[in-house]
This record gives sequence, C-alpha cells and structure tokens, in this order.
Amino acid sequence: MPSPLSPIRPTDNAARTLARDLVAGARFGAIGVLHPVSGAPHVARIALAPATGGGLLALVSGLALHSRALAVAPQAGVLLGEPGAKGDPLTQPRLSLSVTARFVEPEEARAQGLRAHWLALHPKARIYADLPDFRFVHLAPTGALLNGGFGRAFELTAEDLAP
Amino acid sequence: MPSPLSPIRPTDNAARTLARDLVAGARFGAIGVLHPVSGAPHVARIALAPATGGGLLALVSGLALHSRALAVAPQAGVLLGEPGAKGDPLTQPRLSLSVTARFVEPEEARAQGLRAHWLALHPKARIYADLPDFRFVHLAPTGALLNGGFGRAFELTAEDLAP
Repeated sequence: MPSPLSPIRPTDNAARTLARDLVAGARFGAIGVLHPVSGAPHVARIALAPATGGGLLALVSGLALHSRALAVAPQAGVLLGEPGAKGDPLTQPRLSLSVTARFVEPEEARAQGLRAHWLALHPKARIYADLPDFRFVHLAPTGALLNGGFGRAFELTAEDLAP
Repeated sequence: MPSPLSPIRPTDNAARTLARDLVAGARFGAIGVLHPVSGAPHVARIALAPATGGGLLALVSGLALHSRALAVAPQAGVLLGEPGAKGDPLTQPRLSLSVTARFVEPEEARAQGLRAHWLALHPKARIYADLPDFRFVHLAPTGALLNGGFGRAFELTAEDLAP
C-alpha cells in the first residue's frame, strides 16, 4: 500500500525486535473499536498483558462500550507504547496493531490459567477480576505499523510480531 | 443508549469540568480512524492542542496513514488523558471523544494564527511545522465518554464540552 512518497522503511530485525518488545511490555494501551451504534471509531484505554503464544490479552467488563463493540465487530486497532512522563511522546516508539478480538470462554480461561497470568502482571485487578461481567479477550495481531520516531515507520506482518 | 446495566452516571458539573480540563490540557492523544483499505479501526498517537473556540487542533503529515484515513472518513475517535509514569492508568481520568475532522486550508490557518498558537504549545514542532505535507486539522467533538476512574463513567454532549 505504500505510495512513492510513503515514509515506510524496509522491515529489519531491529524493527521486529522493537515491535516484539512493545508487545511483551504492554500493560496498557488504547483500543480502537467501531462504535456499535454510529459505526465511527471509538478509542478507550484498556489494561493489557502479552498472551502466551503470541498476541495480547485484555480483561474487559461486558458493560464497557468497547466490549460491546468488539462483540459485534471483532476487528480492532491497538496502540502500544505509552509515553513516559518526560520527553516528546512523538519521538517515543509506538506500535499501531491491527487485531482480531476473540472472547475467551470461562472454561478455556481456567484451563489456560489466564487469571493467574493476569494477576501476576496486574495485581490490582484482584478487586474486579472475578466480577461476573468480566471476560478475557484475546487480541490476535494481523499486522502493525511501527513508528520508531519521526520518519522511522515500518509495516509489520503477523509473522514479524510472533514471539 | 445506556442499558439497564449501564455504568453511566448522570452528567454533573464536576464531570463537565473534568472533561473540559482534559481537552484544555491535551498535548497528545490517541486518534482512532478507519483504515482506508481495510475499514478496520487504526489507532495512532498524535500531537494535539486545544482549539480556540472549542475542539482540538492537530498538525499532521499528509503522508501519515491516519491523515489519509481522515481525508476519506472524517469521523474519528480521540482518547485524551495520557497516563502518568506513576499510578494505575485505569484509575486516571480519560476522555473518549467522538470527533469530526476538517482539514484547515493554509490561508485559513494563516488568518487564524494557528502556527503561532501551535508552536507556543509545541515548540519542538518548529522543525517540521513548515514542511509542505503538514496540515492543520480541526477535530470538532460530537460527544464523549468520560471515564473518571473505575465505575465512574459519563456520557457527554458537544454542549457539555464547549469551553
């Protein structure tokens, strides 16, 4: 899709490593979904964890707008790489993932030990992880745009992101 | 749209003030657009400034995917309220805006003094503000979801957000 003017660079191993590190270190991110009524993009902050075997895991309330949106339209976008308190957020690396969301059935979550995995990375989630409306969602990347700073953009495939 | 189970609270002046403060203090945010090829949500980090008269201003490169997306589909979502280095990002207030994007013509930008307004808030933008592919975009809110922390959600109208 790159035009002759595209700032996209050829993907190299440094870009792949940076992208995988952003996924492995993700604890929060911005998820973009299609609003179930308007169809327009809606962006929300969600807690995240890297999923064993690749992709990301989220623990979401079924009452949240983004959860209801994902149940209708599972194609979503996720921005990783939260800016720090210092420095220019536009020079800090970030990853725009394209993902397909899949709600994990409670039995499968138990079999895979997702609760323990989640609480190890999000100990404060103990206060809501067992509420009946909370569910795990697996976010499987289908591709990504990595921005490593001004003028350093890369298009990555799902394979580039595999751990 | 709130269901009987909706966690949305009645909008009060504290919620309006918090939302307006998040807009007034916005320097960066996550914008969700419709990918021009796939139609799926795509989320990117962009620099922002409050616009005189309401809404937000962005300065974007025409080469960026989100710019090309906005040119095709101007309905977008913007998440404000960047998490700090400390504390739980899910307890920090954030605002999910629904916006309509409009590219500002260069003559109009000059007449409105947008460059000076932008550089006062983003002095480092001096190095790219005058590149020929950069354009100002006005993001007019049509509504918002304010999350003031766990279980404290509010639906706001464009009027609630007007400065």
